[in-house]
Amino acid sequence: MAAETRRRREPLIDCDVHNALPSDDALQPYMPDEWRERRDALGYLPLAFRQVRENLGDRSYMGAEYPRPTPRASRVDAWPPGGGPPASDLAFTQAQLLDAWNVEAAVLNPLLGIGEMLNLELGSVLATAANDWLAAEWLDPEPRFRASIVVAYEDGISAAAEIDRMAADKRFVQVLVLSRTIEPLGRKRYWPIYEACERHGLPLGIHNGGWGGHPMTPAGFPSYYIEDTAAMALAYQAQVTSLLVEGVLTRFPGLRVVLIEGGFAWLPALMWRLDRAWRRLRAEAPLLDRAPSELIRERIYVSTQPMEETERPEQFPELLEQLGMDDRIMFSTDYPHWDFDAPDMALPVRLEGELRRKILHDNAARLYGLGVPAAAGG
Amino acid sequence: MAAETRRRREPLIDCDVHNALPSDDALQPYMPDEWRERRDALGYLPLAFRQVRENLGDRSYMGAEYPRPTPRASRVDAWPPGGGPPASDLAFTQAQLLDAWNVEAAVLNPLLGIGEMLNLELGSVLATAANDWLAAEWLDPEPRFRASIVVAYEDGISAAAEIDRMAADKRFVQVLVLSRTIEPLGRKRYWPIYEACERHGLPLGIHNGGWGGHPMTPAGFPSYYIEDTAAMALAYQAQVTSLLVEGVLTRFPGLRVVLIEGGFAWLPALMWRLDRAWRRLRAEAPLLDRAPSELIRERIYVSTQPMEETERPEQFPELLEQLGMDDRIMFSTDYPHWDFDAPDMALPVRLEGELRRKILHDNAARLYGLGVPAAAGG
Repeated sequence: MAAETRRRREPLIDCDVHNALPSDDALQPYMPDEWRERRDALGYLPLAFRQVRENLGDRSYMGAEYPRPTPRASRVDAWPPGGGPPASDLAFTQAQLLDAWNVEAAVLNPLLGIGEMLNLELGSVLATAANDWLAAEWLDPEPRFRASIVVAYEDGISAAAEIDRMAADKRFVQVLVLSRTIEPLGRKRYWPIYEACERHGLPLGIHNGGWGGHPMTPAGFPSYYIEDTAAMALAYQAQVTSLLVEGVLTRFPGLRVVLIEGGFAWLPALMWRLDRAWRRLRAEAPLLDRAPSELIRERIYVSTQPMEETERPEQFPELLEQLGMDDRIMFSTDYPHWDFDAPDMALPVRLEGELRRKILHDNAARLYGLGVPAAAGG
Repeated sequence: MAAETRRRREPLIDCDVHNALPSDDALQPYMPDEWRERRDALGYLPLAFRQVRENLGDRSYMGAEYPRPTPRASRVDAWPPGGGPPASDLAFTQAQLLDAWNVEAAVLNPLLGIGEMLNLELGSVLATAANDWLAAEWLDPEPRFRASIVVAYEDGISAAAEIDRMAADKRFVQVLVLSRTIEPLGRKRYWPIYEACERHGLPLGIHNGGWGGHPMTPAGFPSYYIEDTAAMALAYQAQVTSLLVEGVLTRFPGLRVVLIEGGFAWLPALMWRLDRAWRRLRAEAPLLDRAPSELIRERIYVSTQPMEETERPEQFPELLEQLGMDDRIMFSTDYPHWDFDAPDMALPVRLEGELRRKILHDNAARLYGLGVPAAAGG
């Protein structure tokens, strides 16, 4: 009963929800005629192919194709009774996520594999279709949803054009890229994306996943899903470093970056390493005109799922203090994935009061412009 | 004067010294005739080529060829007056390192690029030559030196044979591999090395470096040396994970692993991630029969150079407490490299008494069997 009461009382913003296509044809109505015809002519089904590959569950070089604990790595109770994969049914998602947990707002980050496509033209067309689908089938009928703009991020120019096209719709609150890119995200090819983010005041969200062709470790391709979950943090360490050292955060002073599903316990150690290297080697990166830790704390946000659990409870406040980002940690459930974080279980019990409210609500409300922070309480 | 006094008083073991070949021909006397002839016939100079490449200093995909802060990434005062590269002259190294810092024992880890060679036969022959060179030109004339056994680690079988050949010489106290391998070190191809380590009671030392053909980040090839120094820690995170999840530490219960030049501030966060993943996904890795953090604390050692500096001094004891490895942190200078850690400067001032003595001396004395720990003091 206490948990139930809390669910009702505590205002909540969920920063990471993965809605899905109900079928491989779901984007077809949003595709230009010539691409629909091309697809029919070729029998070319990239999304269907992706799903088949995922269901095979064989271990492969890509990593994302490891056997998952559950099909589509989803909660077993998340399959809609009416059919379709988890989080593909609006009404069921509204009930199971938004209503059940009293979610005030939730950011949709559909993981469609679009940014990874080597056919950049197709990627660009699919990104446009995905954003139109998000607006028509998720944002129009449900005002509690917000969404990230899907872009074909390996093509900075076309990604920027898509951001420009979508930015007028204020329900799109972020630009979505994945963490394993062809080159580190600080490299010049991606700068048009950051320019567009800055132009429209949109944060860049880096979500775990993707594949740029490289193994997920510097020592090659690992064998197990546990290694995959540990290696998630590696790409983020590299991306944060690249954005700093290539001067992206300095070149684009309005750019804010959200690390989604990457954890954050590794971040203090990275700040210490980078600050030390910067003190000795700063001549190499003249645009990096401040200590990396300072820039990180000003411009980078993290999400909670999956939040590393410290070995002993008293180490968690130490970690938060080392991190120094109380205003930049944002709650997320990762719905409908198997490692879903329930709002009343995700945060250490001792995290109460103002910090709890910041993490569950206010930090995201401020970053994504979701109205005035809710009143104190919870 | 105070520092000078401490230098005299404090017993010290240096776990990472990089002696070098004085010239590209220095291994020739130790090579079998047929390989010497083959080299002469082909004009094939892998080591010379390596050095030329290093001196070019252009940024490349390999990473190790970034411009270094100094030539050969070495202290500017480490070039021997008599010629040759840093740490290639025994007498000068004795004076500048062992005598100047009152080093009781130092472990030689020559970085010769031998393990990276794709020609495994040549790699194997060069490893044998390198170990004979170490014994004849470094260990015979200087009893304070110990050495790691150099192996062509991508060929587990020949590496194990070389370990068997050298293990009778107790001045070789460790087997040396590098951190960026073709496959993660937990994979089966490397198991003969661990079997041989266990057979002879030798720790496996994983030193930063090497190149298995993969970028040093999961997001591709970075551009700057600062990124390189930050990315060092990534390979170690992957290697520790692989050794655990593939069951290497369980299959070879006598195997101890030393992480050299990888830092350790990232290790608590990795333990937290791995423990959490293991609690949920342990069915995938049945040989991993204990919490990863427990195995790490039993079997893994770390070296101090480069030791991450916490942002505030009081965070350093927190880090040590989170790490829980007071008996497994070992001092190293990384001589003659530019980021050499002087023994009287490397450790935070407040680290005094027993822990200081353990780090500077006793932990390495115990692991490497370097006689009874020195008496208290320092």
